[in-house]
Amino acid sequence: MDVHDLTRSLHIKNDAKIVMLVADGLGGLPIEKGGLTELETAVTPNLDALAKQGVSGLSIPVLPGISPGSGPGHLGLFGYDPLKYLIGRGALEATGIGIELTDRDVAIRCNFCTIDADGNITDRRAGRIPTDESAPLAVRLRQVSIPGIEIIVESVKEHRFVVVLRGEGLGGDVLDTDPQRTGVPPLEPIAKESGSEKTVEIAKQFLVQARELLAGESKANCLTMRGFSAKPSLPSYEEVYGLRAAAVAVYPMYKGLARLVGMDIIGEATTLDEQADVLEASWNDYDFFFLHYKYTDSTGEDGNFAAKTARTEDFDAVIPRINKLKPTVTIVTGDHSTPARLANHSWHGVPTLLAADSCRPDACETFGEQQALSGGLGQFEAKHLMTLALAHAGRLGKYGA
Amino acid sequence: MDVHDLTRSLHIKNDAKIVMLVADGLGGLPIEKGGLTELETAVTPNLDALAKQGVSGLSIPVLPGISPGSGPGHLGLFGYDPLKYLIGRGALEATGIGIELTDRDVAIRCNFCTIDADGNITDRRAGRIPTDESAPLAVRLRQVSIPGIEIIVESVKEHRFVVVLRGEGLGGDVLDTDPQRTGVPPLEPIAKESGSEKTVEIAKQFLVQARELLAGESKANCLTMRGFSAKPSLPSYEEVYGLRAAAVAVYPMYKGLARLVGMDIIGEATTLDEQADVLEASWNDYDFFFLHYKYTDSTGEDGNFAAKTARTEDFDAVIPRINKLKPTVTIVTGDHSTPARLANHSWHGVPTLLAADSCRPDACETFGEQQALSGGLGQFEAKHLMTLALAHAGRLGKYGA
Repeated sequence: MDVHDLTRSLHIKNDAKIVMLVADGLGGLPIEKGGLTELETAVTPNLDALAKQGVSGLSIPVLPGISPGSGPGHLGLFGYDPLKYLIGRGALEATGIGIELTDRDVAIRCNFCTIDADGNITDRRAGRIPTDESAPLAVRLRQVSIPGIEIIVESVKEHRFVVVLRGEGLGGDVLDTDPQRTGVPPLEPIAKESGSEKTVEIAKQFLVQARELLAGESKANCLTMRGFSAKPSLPSYEEVYGLRAAAVAVYPMYKGLARLVGMDIIGEATTLDEQADVLEASWNDYDFFFLHYKYTDSTGEDGNFAAKTARTEDFDAVIPRINKLKPTVTIVTGDHSTPARLANHSWHGVPTLLAADSCRPDACETFGEQQALSGGLGQFEAKHLMTLALAHAGRLGKYGA
Repeated sequence: MDVHDLTRSLHIKNDAKIVMLVADGLGGLPIEKGGLTELETAVTPNLDALAKQGVSGLSIPVLPGISPGSGPGHLGLFGYDPLKYLIGRGALEATGIGIELTDRDVAIRCNFCTIDADGNITDRRAGRIPTDESAPLAVRLRQVSIPGIEIIVESVKEHRFVVVLRGEGLGGDVLDTDPQRTGVPPLEPIAKESGSEKTVEIAKQFLVQARELLAGESKANCLTMRGFSAKPSLPSYEEVYGLRAAAVAVYPMYKGLARLVGMDIIGEATTLDEQADVLEASWNDYDFFFLHYKYTDSTGEDGNFAAKTARTEDFDAVIPRINKLKPTVTIVTGDHSTPARLANHSWHGVPTLLAADSCRPDACETFGEQQALSGGLGQFEAKHLMTLALAHAGRLGKYGA
């Protein structure tokens, strides 16, 4: 019995609203030994007030020591075991650039590459061709035509682009064609199971036509395919939690992840204030709101402690607008830590708070890593957060008599 | 997907060194209510400095409430789920006396016993015959000869000895022959599955010859066999973590446990200082070092609080020599608690510290049970320690995109 078997049978409908505010990469590290983290350094009176009012803790995104990407990081927060639910690389890349996958799709991460007269690869990344030169080549590949199959080709960045094959009976279990070295030709796609043999046939036709369309291009005359994947099959928020859920995100990746669990993507906000506008405007239409804030992660990845601290303060500034809506449960967390000191995603626990009338008091007076260590949420796996949210919202019945 | 599936696919090779110092039975209890534990009583300036620098916590060897033996205790520390990986009793006993098991072996714990003229057992432990009398009997049993089978017989202590049958096609699933009571004859060995039928035939031949060799001995004229087991199959450190690993231990049991996970056993040290010599001499040849210290456990089992405290101080004194090697990650822990007050292994959390540059500060100023309770490692299952060590060593890539 997994946790969704429980929530499926125990969830209750009521008027309670849950808001989950995700500051991407929120957790940090001091720059110098014994110093403060970005969050501890930032002046965050509104987050501190929420921490004082609610319970704090440190969320472990996957398992101790494991640094997650955005996919597993968000699945955990959404209550989906990130070791059970896997999102294929192709599906994540397609999702990240805003392609809405259907059940009939196989998504593929493609690289432009160069081959010599003998067909052997000379550069697996086509010299990291600039995006303004590679994007028109991706557009040209839309001329590929295969009966019964809809083909989507979108540039990502430099040598990277995405192909989505849409049709009936396409499985996603196909081996990469990138041989991982130069001096040899690209590999043929090979099905890992019989349900993906049609995909292999279509991919081969795509490759033949694509190479004809690229022949003569000096900078990128060939391509490789990696990370074949069907749309991941995730049960929806409606089904497992009984929640009408909406996502208010700026970047396609996070909209895409939310869509995979059945959230509606609402608004076209590009700033935190606009995100708050969207929340206000849709307040009566949903039970659960996921609001994603990117800049605590991007500044962390840049290794910029001061900027991450400043972006954390910007995030704090939107809290009064959320409070004004009087959510039953307010959660503030991150999908992982991105300490500026490491300039990378890390495995460190993510400061997390949950504020609701039914919280038992803990000793936390401010919102920060060290305080959270002794908070009422303890150190916990992220996948348990949604069940706690439902409980504090009065949306879960009793298990057993 | 288990944690080794993750580490297998995510591990990275670099120059970082990890040192795991295991003070056996480290955790303790106050002798009197409200007092201090052995570790808290001991003067340990070097461990305190490491705790201040790193993060502390309490390791749960198996699950809350479970007191482990050395086998499961160490498997947990090595990152192998002690509920998934089982070491048979015979294999553990053989390992404990220094027998290096091969894939062709079945190890058996044997007891000398006495039987009457009717063949019924009169004493299941042969009156706990002294070792100096039982050891020559064990040597005599080396005369047993079975074609195609190599036979190893080694005395353990008092009535206990080990038999290893080495040959082709020997399974380890055989029922004990000890009937667990007197007044009845020993049971016949019975195979639990068909792959162990050859083992049963060999064991029967061994028993017939052994009883002939013992006939007429007044103190021990018979034997029983228990804990039949093949060599446990554990994936190696190299395979699951990408680590070249070495063990610096004094006692055969711990060398044997380390060998089971593919560590090299290095040096012939008999003291902590000699163990440090070995570490220094092999520093460039390995990525991971396991150093085992026995006397915190043996003094605890003796119920000697003062001696355990003193042996803890001896252990502290070697820390500066470890620090001088500048490991990337230093771990200090135990395989379980052995409170002198209980004179036995216990289930209590084991004080554990991990020191590395990438540690987030916690409030711990000294190394001890009560401080560890509010440390950055929290209370955690021992099996997660290796993943944390790899992360802090920069030896784990990101999970998912």
